[in-house]
Amino acid sequence: MAKSPYDIVAHLDNFPYSDAKPTLHADLFDRYHALRVEGIDADLGYIPTTLVRRIPWPDKDWVVVDRPRAVVLMTPPETPASRSVRTQMMEAVVHRMLEAGCTEIRDGWRDERFPVYGPDGDVVFEIERSASAYFGVVTSGVQMLGYVVDDDGVENARIRLWIAKRSMRKQTYPGMLDCTAAGALAVGQTPRSTVMLEAAEEASIPSAVLKKGLRRSGCISYFHVKGLGSQLGGDGSMALLLPEVEYLYELQLDPGTVPRPWDGEVENFRLWDADQVLDALRRGLFKPNSAVAVIDFLLRHGLISQEIEPRYVEMVTRLHRRLPLPWRQNWDDEDMFWMGL
Amino acid sequence: MAKSPYDIVAHLDNFPYSDAKPTLHADLFDRYHALRVEGIDADLGYIPTTLVRRIPWPDKDWVVVDRPRAVVLMTPPETPASRSVRTQMMEAVVHRMLEAGCTEIRDGWRDERFPVYGPDGDVVFEIERSASAYFGVVTSGVQMLGYVVDDDGVENARIRLWIAKRSMRKQTYPGMLDCTAAGALAVGQTPRSTVMLEAAEEASIPSAVLKKGLRRSGCISYFHVKGLGSQLGGDGSMALLLPEVEYLYELQLDPGTVPRPWDGEVENFRLWDADQVLDALRRGLFKPNSAVAVIDFLLRHGLISQEIEPRYVEMVTRLHRRLPLPWRQNWDDEDMFWMGL
Repeated sequence: MAKSPYDIVAHLDNFPYSDAKPTLHADLFDRYHALRVEGIDADLGYIPTTLVRRIPWPDKDWVVVDRPRAVVLMTPPETPASRSVRTQMMEAVVHRMLEAGCTEIRDGWRDERFPVYGPDGDVVFEIERSASAYFGVVTSGVQMLGYVVDDDGVENARIRLWIAKRSMRKQTYPGMLDCTAAGALAVGQTPRSTVMLEAAEEASIPSAVLKKGLRRSGCISYFHVKGLGSQLGGDGSMALLLPEVEYLYELQLDPGTVPRPWDGEVENFRLWDADQVLDALRRGLFKPNSAVAVIDFLLRHGLISQEIEPRYVEMVTRLHRRLPLPWRQNWDDEDMFWMGL
Repeated sequence: MAKSPYDIVAHLDNFPYSDAKPTLHADLFDRYHALRVEGIDADLGYIPTTLVRRIPWPDKDWVVVDRPRAVVLMTPPETPASRSVRTQMMEAVVHRMLEAGCTEIRDGWRDERFPVYGPDGDVVFEIERSASAYFGVVTSGVQMLGYVVDDDGVENARIRLWIAKRSMRKQTYPGMLDCTAAGALAVGQTPRSTVMLEAAEEASIPSAVLKKGLRRSGCISYFHVKGLGSQLGGDGSMALLLPEVEYLYELQLDPGTVPRPWDGEVENFRLWDADQVLDALRRGLFKPNSAVAVIDFLLRHGLISQEIEPRYVEMVTRLHRRLPLPWRQNWDDEDMFWMGL
């Protein structure tokens, strides 16, 4: 069935809103334990309660409470709490999860760690990428769209987008459509360093072109719940929470600069006009979180109207959801870059 | 004191969030009666309870309940409920308010009506502009920024914005800075018709230029509470709720097309670069809801970074707040316009 832009956003941002569906929101929330760390005044993630009960939490490091539901990582008495100590303690729990049968963590293992931030923007701990979903922590990524403006001097300038087709060998969403370059934000990376690297590695865009034209264009945020089944009607005992922030970039390219696959992540790039992109969105051909980055681009450039999407304003608010968990707000290395503008 | 972009957004979007400040949110909400209409399943606005108690609500048309707090406009038994019947009933209540001493409604009277929408997008009733704030209904407006791109061919293209200085004779915010053109959405107007009219009347921009280059660029939404005093610490018994949606437009102009005041609403236009605009924002020189439209423009064009605003992501989510009331999502006349793209 054809999906409207709103449908695509609502499918990704599918954790019920407390004001719109208070009962469903409360019922669903009740199936999770908050992930907390002693001394930090915020939930840092949400773990399915069924999973919490299957894992033998190491007694000396963890306290599991049921009212309110939370698992709390304690400060070891003999050492001061630190990012690296907590990272080791988290790793021990991930191994308990593997032993408890979470085979997807092992199958998806990337040897790449995601940072988890506290309310003050410091990294509280790091966690293996493939395990992060089980803890419901906020993950971040970048999405960049390269585009060409065909100005015929008479009509409105026409925009065409460089759309990637993912390699069939990709671990996730093989063969689906994607932004020109994209990537997750691992430990030690910043949005800018990630997008520069991915644009070079996935799309062979010269660094001089990036330095000259790369433009940060806001961010989107959404709260996805995975594995609840249709209409959130499933039993949901192991539905995973995936709150996410995506930093968006765009890059106007000369007609002569053509993205080319380099590292094998992308099969090919095609230059599509807005109608072709909208048609592919409707047919569900885009990787879901790339689809919403494309929708935000089309919105920013006036290429989605109420004729195309009657639930325009609601879609815009849902593309920028306030998440109930902290996330990092500040990236130092952007300073130098932006000061050059 | 210098205001950061986040401060400006937070000052306008200043109704507490239920997740961040649950007690304050509940305390404040408890000071209002919901405005409801028989047969329509949604709150349509929020009226200060102190005001509700001062007004002798006409018994035959209204039911006032205290648990949950609501004033409910009833369908008259002798006539079917309709937009025009309800508009008359609202007008009768506005006159009671005038008699009860709400002199600001009379002083600000515009003879211009705002539409109030139900969840299905139909107009439930219309209300005089100067009275709308007392009912806490969602109001809408448009904001357009005209800009010039100076491409020197070597560095990044430089953007300059056409900033208006409001006339000293304006009823609201005289002498403050503003977008190139802006206006409220009254009954019978659409975002497009309003922005076309305002750009012609306030800035003398030729209709051919608008037709060629006017670009819808999303919307912002926020929940303002007016009259609570500093830090929301005032007594708040008559603080008014002003939830608002602003539809945004932008228009790239040739250097030769210069906006000029025409109808006396604007004193002058100046072409400012991003640094000058940011400096004026920091100094609080912009009309508050125009300031946030300017901030969203700067965000979309990559001219606000984390160096400028460390609370970048939180600012973006607050610029797109989900409102607890219905608003109109669909405007038919945009169709024809956008189909031309």
